[in-house]
Amino acid sequence: MTDSNLDRSAAQKPFRRLLLTGAAGNLGKQLRGALAAWADVVRVSDIAPLGEVSEHEEASVVDLADAAAVHALLEGVDAVVHLGGISVEAPFEDLLEANIRGLYNLYSAAQKQGVKRVIYASSNHAVGFHPVTSVVDTDAPLRPDTLYGVTKCFGESLSRYYFDRFGLETVCLRIGSSFEQPRNPRMLVTYLSYRDFIELVRCSLFTNRVGHAIIYGVSDNRISWVDNKKAAFLGFRPQDSSAQFEHLFPASAPHTQFDDPTQRFQGGPFVLAGPMEPKR
Amino acid sequence: MTDSNLDRSAAQKPFRRLLLTGAAGNLGKQLRGALAAWADVVRVSDIAPLGEVSEHEEASVVDLADAAAVHALLEGVDAVVHLGGISVEAPFEDLLEANIRGLYNLYSAAQKQGVKRVIYASSNHAVGFHPVTSVVDTDAPLRPDTLYGVTKCFGESLSRYYFDRFGLETVCLRIGSSFEQPRNPRMLVTYLSYRDFIELVRCSLFTNRVGHAIIYGVSDNRISWVDNKKAAFLGFRPQDSSAQFEHLFPASAPHTQFDDPTQRFQGGPFVLAGPMEPKR
Amino acid sequence: MTDSNLDRSAAQKPFRRLLLTGAAGNLGKQLRGALAAWADVVRVSDIAPLGEVSEHEEASVVDLADAAAVHALLEGVDAVVHLGGISVEAPFEDLLEANIRGLYNLYSAAQKQGVKRVIYASSNHAVGFHPVTSVVDTDAPLRPDTLYGVTKCFGESLSRYYFDRFGLETVCLRIGSSFEQPRNPRMLVTYLSYRDFIELVRCSLFTNRVGHAIIYGVSDNRISWVDNKKAAFLGFRPQDSSAQFEHLFPASAPHTQFDDPTQRFQGGPFVLAGPMEPKR
Amino acid sequence: MTDSNLDRSAAQKPFRRLLLTGAAGNLGKQLRGALAAWADVVRVSDIAPLGEVSEHEEASVVDLADAAAVHALLEGVDAVVHLGGISVEAPFEDLLEANIRGLYNLYSAAQKQGVKRVIYASSNHAVGFHPVTSVVDTDAPLRPDTLYGVTKCFGESLSRYYFDRFGLETVCLRIGSSFEQPRNPRMLVTYLSYRDFIELVRCSLFTNRVGHAIIYGVSDNRISWVDNKKAAFLGFRPQDSSAQFEHLFPASAPHTQFDDPTQRFQGGPFVLAGPMEPKR
Amino acid sequence: MTDSNLDRSAAQKPFRRLLLTGAAGNLGKQLRGALAAWADVVRVSDIAPLGEVSEHEEASVVDLADAAAVHALLEGVDAVVHLGGISVEAPFEDLLEANIRGLYNLYSAAQKQGVKRVIYASSNHAVGFHPVTSVVDTDAPLRPDTLYGVTKCFGESLSRYYFDRFGLETVCLRIGSSFEQPRNPRMLVTYLSYRDFIELVRCSLFTNRVGHAIIYGVSDNRISWVDNKKAAFLGFRPQDSSAQFEHLFPASAPHTQFDDPTQRFQGGPFVLAGPMEPKR
Amino acid sequence: MTDSNLDRSAAQKPFRRLLLTGAAGNLGKQLRGALAAWADVVRVSDIAPLGEVSEHEEASVVDLADAAAVHALLEGVDAVVHLGGISVEAPFEDLLEANIRGLYNLYSAAQKQGVKRVIYASSNHAVGFHPVTSVVDTDAPLRPDTLYGVTKCFGESLSRYYFDRFGLETVCLRIGSSFEQPRNPRMLVTYLSYRDFIELVRCSLFTNRVGHAIIYGVSDNRISWVDNKKAAFLGFRPQDSSAQFEHLFPASAPHTQFDDPTQRFQGGPFVLAGPMEPKR
Repeated sequence: MTDSNLDRSAAQKPFRRLLLTGAAGNLGKQLRGALAAWADVVRVSDIAPLGEVSEHEEASVVDLADAAAVHALLEGVDAVVHLGGISVEAPFEDLLEANIRGLYNLYSAAQKQGVKRVIYASSNHAVGFHPVTSVVDTDAPLRPDTLYGVTKCFGESLSRYYFDRFGLETVCLRIGSSFEQPRNPRMLVTYLSYRDFIELVRCSLFTNRVGHAIIYGVSDNRISWVDNKKAAFLGFRPQDSSAQFEHLFPASAPHTQFDDPTQRFQGGPFVLAGPMEPKR
Repeated sequence: MTDSNLDRSAAQKPFRRLLLTGAAGNLGKQLRGALAAWADVVRVSDIAPLGEVSEHEEASVVDLADAAAVHALLEGVDAVVHLGGISVEAPFEDLLEANIRGLYNLYSAAQKQGVKRVIYASSNHAVGFHPVTSVVDTDAPLRPDTLYGVTKCFGESLSRYYFDRFGLETVCLRIGSSFEQPRNPRMLVTYLSYRDFIELVRCSLFTNRVGHAIIYGVSDNRISWVDNKKAAFLGFRPQDSSAQFEHLFPASAPHTQFDDPTQRFQGGPFVLAGPMEPKR
Repeated sequence: MTDSNLDRSAAQKPFRRLLLTGAAGNLGKQLRGALAAWADVVRVSDIAPLGEVSEHEEASVVDLADAAAVHALLEGVDAVVHLGGISVEAPFEDLLEANIRGLYNLYSAAQKQGVKRVIYASSNHAVGFHPVTSVVDTDAPLRPDTLYGVTKCFGESLSRYYFDRFGLETVCLRIGSSFEQPRNPRMLVTYLSYRDFIELVRCSLFTNRVGHAIIYGVSDNRISWVDNKKAAFLGFRPQDSSAQFEHLFPASAPHTQFDDPTQRFQGGPFVLAGPMEPKR
Repeated sequence: MTDSNLDRSAAQKPFRRLLLTGAAGNLGKQLRGALAAWADVVRVSDIAPLGEVSEHEEASVVDLADAAAVHALLEGVDAVVHLGGISVEAPFEDLLEANIRGLYNLYSAAQKQGVKRVIYASSNHAVGFHPVTSVVDTDAPLRPDTLYGVTKCFGESLSRYYFDRFGLETVCLRIGSSFEQPRNPRMLVTYLSYRDFIELVRCSLFTNRVGHAIIYGVSDNRISWVDNKKAAFLGFRPQDSSAQFEHLFPASAPHTQFDDPTQRFQGGPFVLAGPMEPKR
Repeated sequence: MTDSNLDRSAAQKPFRRLLLTGAAGNLGKQLRGALAAWADVVRVSDIAPLGEVSEHEEASVVDLADAAAVHALLEGVDAVVHLGGISVEAPFEDLLEANIRGLYNLYSAAQKQGVKRVIYASSNHAVGFHPVTSVVDTDAPLRPDTLYGVTKCFGESLSRYYFDRFGLETVCLRIGSSFEQPRNPRMLVTYLSYRDFIELVRCSLFTNRVGHAIIYGVSDNRISWVDNKKAAFLGFRPQDSSAQFEHLFPASAPHTQFDDPTQRFQGGPFVLAGPMEPKR
Repeated sequence: MTDSNLDRSAAQKPFRRLLLTGAAGNLGKQLRGALAAWADVVRVSDIAPLGEVSEHEEASVVDLADAAAVHALLEGVDAVVHLGGISVEAPFEDLLEANIRGLYNLYSAAQKQGVKRVIYASSNHAVGFHPVTSVVDTDAPLRPDTLYGVTKCFGESLSRYYFDRFGLETVCLRIGSSFEQPRNPRMLVTYLSYRDFIELVRCSLFTNRVGHAIIYGVSDNRISWVDNKKAAFLGFRPQDSSAQFEHLFPASAPHTQFDDPTQRFQGGPFVLAGPMEPKR
């Protein structure tokens, strides 16, 4: 459309409208501000309240399991950053609604609405049953460590299908531990600073072609269990490292319970977290 | 139990009780007889009527989406051959109930009931978006060609989780086209004779350790798109070939529509089959 | 065209017109008869006289270095079996005309005339500098053993380009030693029976999609230096073996000149054959 | 020779005589000065005028297609930096003379004159038909994106042959875009600064053994389509990056024509540049 | 030497003198007769008595730990089949003498005496700690399952050194279970018939160049844990299979002790056999 | 033990007792001070005199070939840094005692005394027969360049066995050239600064799980023949580089004796050093 292109050029922003799901969550909050610089309109969505809404924002409280609502949510959207859904282990029923049915609704709507690209928050828990004495690249066999991790594998397969079938592009971000700072020794390895997280989303949105890509979301930490070399075309170069936090967890002799699965596998405590019984 | 071991020894059959789901389907019917030789009791199950029930059989009409029924179904079972669920493209809602919720019910029950092994009917449609000019092995990246294929990827991830978490073993059979004979030229490549199918299940049940294994279910056809070398520990050596049926599809010059996706990808017509709209 | 399709159906042959270059050579003679069964018209071509011409044949003596003649030669052709050019080491000038300029003429004409597929006689001498103590697959790095081998590498690159650029398909046959019988111990390894050669061409012509494929042309000999597993989609299953000729070369203790390059590399005597001085 | 060794020691320069072909071109001009520090005599050559000739230089206007002239050119040379020939898409006839016949002349002469090493300007267009969503290493299959790229593949094969056959070493530099600064967004990925180019040549000349090596010539840009890890023995560590030029090409939403081949493949606009018709 | 060549020609046997160590053992006895056909003189050796000595044989009782005796033993020998040493788990002291010091003596003597090739009885116990749910090829990481297996790894490294340093060729045979017939279910997988064993030695002796090769010694059994594709240049095609013995071990449900290491690893009972205490 | 844990907490040091063998050698001296910060007690051992003993140290002159002495040496030890044994080419008899029998004594004692981890000084000479034009990762095939290198291969196999059999962890450090500064051009590639060496040991001791790991001990030098990517879980990030010493070895034209094995292989002069004759 010549008209809207004219407007956009005046606005100096590359995207007309970006959708951010899970906008009320920890990472959603980090990203909400950054997106303002990249799009004329930022549509924010969550199942939880979204707080104060800026002038450039459109806010929408939506349950991802509600197909009609999700189709409306995707209307007029150029690209989606999908952080919505459940991001920890939970009873299967809950995961099924949020991460399986909800994700299908999102992709079905995105395809029908002509959305070009989804940035999908997958997780390192899709491969958490690889041992801590190995380094996995983005082609490593899936080894989910929870039912939550299984739903992330589902998301990677579903998005692959929408790319192969319709050309709808996705970047799957296998995010590690993105908090202010690592909370335990394991997070020294999986730490992703907020700054690096935002840069990772930026690379995923602006790289001209991404196809269906998988990339680990970790900062440039000293110890690494992952290898992003096959995703170098995305241009993600982390600027931070957990090294500054190593003093918080003084060196100790290696843990003495050799067979403790929470120490043996990359997923850490997640490997024993599931399956959870349904809530009454 | 000493008593039951005594009984089994007298019965001369290696398994006490095998469960066959999807027993009323095309392949279920082929297998039903064969299982009698391997187990004292064969529990057969389907959502459809199961026909005449033999003396050594226990029949049970069950909807896999009914968790309580599935838990009852798994009681006292040594191993499962799981052919149940939907095996073609279908509306997502239907696939969700049968192939996702249903499969979770099956594994959840199997783990709680102490079942040792599941033979899971996955499908070559989990990798159907690989081109026909490539050969995929059992570690090839997942490329589902339908939503149905996506649910088969889900099943492979879920069963991997139950193995890594609980040691519950699974063999995923990526079955090609198992009919009396190939029905079109593509099936010359994907053909699995009934005899080879039964042998594949036999290998999967009797190999002493299988861990979490993936294997393609195809006969020794002239043209092959798959490579089972990493599954050689299962000992599956197909005896049949589609060569005897090649005369049914006389040689023709290569298809002239070069970009036709049903000709370019291993999934054939499946690659355009989905997603299907929900039935009203 | 409806008309010609009608005609072809009456003729019961899958191709309307096949072109065979190098038809007067050793392998061309083997193939000339076989092609009659696959095409209504077989256009045969060589720089040398073509002998008696059958009713279904069109004969044309052409120098491949003559662009205009080659463009005329390709007119109305469905597919080409290109055995033409020089198939042994020769002065660079000669190779340049026949195997480089000539091949460019062929592909340029084929693309412009709408030809769908070329079966290209490459050679195991494109990889002849791999040691005899290794096994190379169809992705192995190129290691030409002669300037002749270098021109075969050129042909593989040129045909790759025409496929990536225009979708013109090619099967590169890295033919070993195709004679009545092996002439020395090395040929026990590289032997390709005439029957297997014809079958290899048949597979290459009739497989529905081949993209740009590379395959070694060897029979099922006891010792093998090559591995065709990545070309299994072509369905070539050799029926013959050099085993029946092993008695011609009685076992002897290994050759005592350890560093003799003609014994160390797969190319055998070729590795010392070039470069040849131009003829006066 | 004891005498000349004495001389060279006095001169404090590691090489006695280096030959630079293509010395009048863009990169040739960059390199001409640098070579002075490394050799007593720098022989510069081009088909175009060579400008002012320094005291330590020997200038020679030569057409590479002229075998006798090339043989004379190589006399007394220790090593060659071969930038000569055509470096963009051109009619096949022209490429044949400059990049095929010319290159053969160069290697034939180098071998006969006892030259020890050639630094050969190959190109990333030898692999330009790999998609921009992949990362290629130095063993990746050849995928030329032009007839020009096909001639670079020829050069890599020819030089491999001369190494395997005669021990004449070559480093193939798959040079990206070496200009003052990137001229379009694609060149942010393929940019090679002049300083890094000179360092790349220095590493290639001075590494004690190089065998037949292939290395990508790119600076340490943020986005990368290539991986030089197998060439780490050459010690090339780029000092520059295109990051300083990213502001020249403001971020925009991804290009909307999804199937545009110039956006899908690493070769960019080259993938549609050829084949070119001969000039009249 | 012209003279001896003349003699050998008259004798019609390819080798002048072969040495067989371990000739009094199980496999040595199988091979002793076969070697007569391949060499004018067969020198047989063991630490145990060698029984009746044929006319074409030279018998020598030698302790491999005796360097001088071993040097004498190798004199005038063309090639060695080295079955000597300890072939089961044993106290380290014993293994050190027979399999480490003894093997060094053998290679040191072979090199000094100009022997061209050694056929070395390595063992699948060099890789016995790979799981039974994997397939290992000849490049798989070493995973010895006993101190005995560690000494076989030593032998593979030592022989590699003698090849790289002196060009002394070795074929390492990773022999499975070579008996009249399998003695337990595991041996159905590792079975090597005597006929196939002799053929394996024949291939290893007569292949013109072997370099330093590793190959698994197993028949064409239904279940396989190993992959010899990289050793296809040796031409070993087993003729036998353990399938004829499967009836000896009737099918049973998989073993119920999931974590039993003797069931989980390819080495079977060997994985718990060591280390053994020294004998008093 | 609650008591000793109390004590250790007071002492603020992560290990109670570390053993350093080879403490009187070049690298042992570097490490001796560093260990004081990590353990309450540092037990130092060598076959040579150990000099002044600090308050926190226990000194013990021990011949590793003396089994009883080694068993006593390992008593009460948490972890071992094993630098002992011979670290250059030597007569086989000497290597056998120090590096084979001695190492077995160490592991046998460590396992019996309940030691949890060994840091084992392996060597790049375990892979020294790889060419200088290749880059080896930690899974590269073993290519020892000396009998010394063969004993390092033995150590890597033996320690693998103790890990697979008993869970005794080992990090194999393939140390390059660790001196004050490089002594020749080759050492510019293999240089490991003392500071980086100490950091490498620190990483190996303190990483929570190491399993059986292999890592190259080199600083971040410009030229690299090795690749530690599969050992990234150890977190070793070298801080130093040999670049500061490059001026000591002025650039020269490549060495002119092309076939000189000391120039062709990574092991440098070691490749011709052995085997050495026994000392009288």
